[in-house]
Amino acid sequence: MSRFLNEQYRAMEAYTPGEQPRDMQYIKLNTNESPYPPAPSVVEAMTGEQVELLRLYSDPTAKNLKERLAGLYGVKPENVFVSNGSDEVLNFAFMAFGGQGAVFPDISYGFYEVYAELYGINAEKIPLEEDFFVDYKKYCGKNKLVVIANPNAPTGMTIPVWQIEEIVKTNPDSPVLIDEAYVDFGGETCLPLVAKYDNLLVTRTFSKSRCLAGGRLGYAFASPAIIADLEKIKYSTNPYNINRLTLLLGEKTVEAEGYYQEKCAEIQKTRAWTVEQLEGLGFSVLPSKANFIFVKTDKMDGGELYRKLKEKGILVRHFTNPRICQFNRVTIGTKNQMEALIDTIKEVLV
Amino acid sequence: MSRFLNEQYRAMEAYTPGEQPRDMQYIKLNTNESPYPPAPSVVEAMTGEQVELLRLYSDPTAKNLKERLAGLYGVKPENVFVSNGSDEVLNFAFMAFGGQGAVFPDISYGFYEVYAELYGINAEKIPLEEDFFVDYKKYCGKNKLVVIANPNAPTGMTIPVWQIEEIVKTNPDSPVLIDEAYVDFGGETCLPLVAKYDNLLVTRTFSKSRCLAGGRLGYAFASPAIIADLEKIKYSTNPYNINRLTLLLGEKTVEAEGYYQEKCAEIQKTRAWTVEQLEGLGFSVLPSKANFIFVKTDKMDGGELYRKLKEKGILVRHFTNPRICQFNRVTIGTKNQMEALIDTIKEVLV
Repeated sequence: MSRFLNEQYRAMEAYTPGEQPRDMQYIKLNTNESPYPPAPSVVEAMTGEQVELLRLYSDPTAKNLKERLAGLYGVKPENVFVSNGSDEVLNFAFMAFGGQGAVFPDISYGFYEVYAELYGINAEKIPLEEDFFVDYKKYCGKNKLVVIANPNAPTGMTIPVWQIEEIVKTNPDSPVLIDEAYVDFGGETCLPLVAKYDNLLVTRTFSKSRCLAGGRLGYAFASPAIIADLEKIKYSTNPYNINRLTLLLGEKTVEAEGYYQEKCAEIQKTRAWTVEQLEGLGFSVLPSKANFIFVKTDKMDGGELYRKLKEKGILVRHFTNPRICQFNRVTIGTKNQMEALIDTIKEVLV
Repeated sequence: MSRFLNEQYRAMEAYTPGEQPRDMQYIKLNTNESPYPPAPSVVEAMTGEQVELLRLYSDPTAKNLKERLAGLYGVKPENVFVSNGSDEVLNFAFMAFGGQGAVFPDISYGFYEVYAELYGINAEKIPLEEDFFVDYKKYCGKNKLVVIANPNAPTGMTIPVWQIEEIVKTNPDSPVLIDEAYVDFGGETCLPLVAKYDNLLVTRTFSKSRCLAGGRLGYAFASPAIIADLEKIKYSTNPYNINRLTLLLGEKTVEAEGYYQEKCAEIQKTRAWTVEQLEGLGFSVLPSKANFIFVKTDKMDGGELYRKLKEKGILVRHFTNPRICQFNRVTIGTKNQMEALIDTIKEVLV
């Protein structure tokens, strides 16, 4: 830390991303990436000519990509925001709308807390119920920025759309942000509510179901007024926030919807198989609609299981928060990878 | 604007980037892009395999790129920060270090003012001298965040490194940010001072001299403590701020230094030719060490010249600020493009 850092950031604790080992020797089930590459048509779109065009700035309005997303999801382009990963939308939303405070579950995406601290936002963390469910009634009538991941991370558990509608309805004077980063693996989207309520902001990402974690592309749906606010923050920080190649790959990804639907179905099938195997071994597995599962066993401490798996070349994600430190979050990979995981767990649990 | 936007952002005016027409019919001399593509070795590095790896997150530490930049510029990796365009470093610097206020020239990169407003920073704007020089003495002993572009934009004019050293020396309790976005076209870098002073932050970009405007890649040099602060802000906003392909292309760009030196020399040659032609036509041209020139003529109003050139298919940049509204900023393109510019100016001035 320098002598110059502004007072308010000196004690701040930054977000710790999952390990990104660069040696590539692990079966990497720790950061919820897709085990599948982008669609062939996406890969083919990256021609030498496109790379040469990098000498030019990207389109700061992201017009083509917004139009394609609007077309696919049945909204208007003015309902769409696109960003440098969905972390950037979250960042902008906390910055723009956190003035009255924010409320989110105590166990959820760890970055919400970091954003709240960064912007000096009073954050109310509501404990998940004992079975890790979000009790929607506790988020009604708050009139603060409400932030809920659905499916939630790291549990993978969902709340039904009618409960989200109750939250949105009872917080008419503040935005409700529903983080749908993991919605494409069996969850139900609340997107249709965007047409009905001007205070709903739905965020999404190309990082998981669209196999583009390294491309950094997020998007969001909301009323035109909320989108305009996010655009204002963007044009006041980094107008060319998304690089030219990612915009192109994003457009091609939207056009290859069929491929991604197939891969999402495959991941759900592999998830079901993995859950069955783990339950067969006596594991508790929370009911997940995401591309990961949250699991624990009475036979071994969560941290120890994480370390033993890492020794054997399999990376999963372990959190030290006391309430969930017996669990590990395991990304759903290919069937082969999950077979290797099950075999290795059998080995280390002996 | 929504009903929800925090009070402090409601009156804020965002940055207006230069026009990015998507029809590509213009000779585009308005946003200081390079007229040359990235080096062949950079283009070739973009294989299908690399695109497939986009399923994985990028390295948030940007280790390889930092090492290469450190090697090329003779500093240590802990002196290097890399970012999603140099706008992101500027953004983080204003956020992290603006607590005591900021000071910059009244005529400079327009974004400095936007960042100051965004973070509620008291901004002192010091008028450029009548001949558009920066008088360094006016920035000494301020003990606020000092921000100076060298070469300055949109003038292209420089201040010598010994004057920067005076500014750095006399502001020991606050960072001095020298924005070297345009340094590679004949300017003199103050980078050697980074080893001597812990309060100097030098920012750079791949957008101009490295032909990667669309790739979004900026970097900065400073003491390890200042770099650590910037990293802290990054890990509190968007840890995976740079996409995987841009990191790769950045590394390959550093390795192709010879190609870029050649192109920078070419642009300086074309700049000299263009200045000579324009002065022959009676234009005033400020002495530029950048890849653009700032020019005016008594024969036509600046705004009118901009519009006439646009009608004829040539885009330059015009600013409406009264002090510089008689000028146009013209990016140096290829020799052919500049010949077309000169011919068109002769046509419209008749």
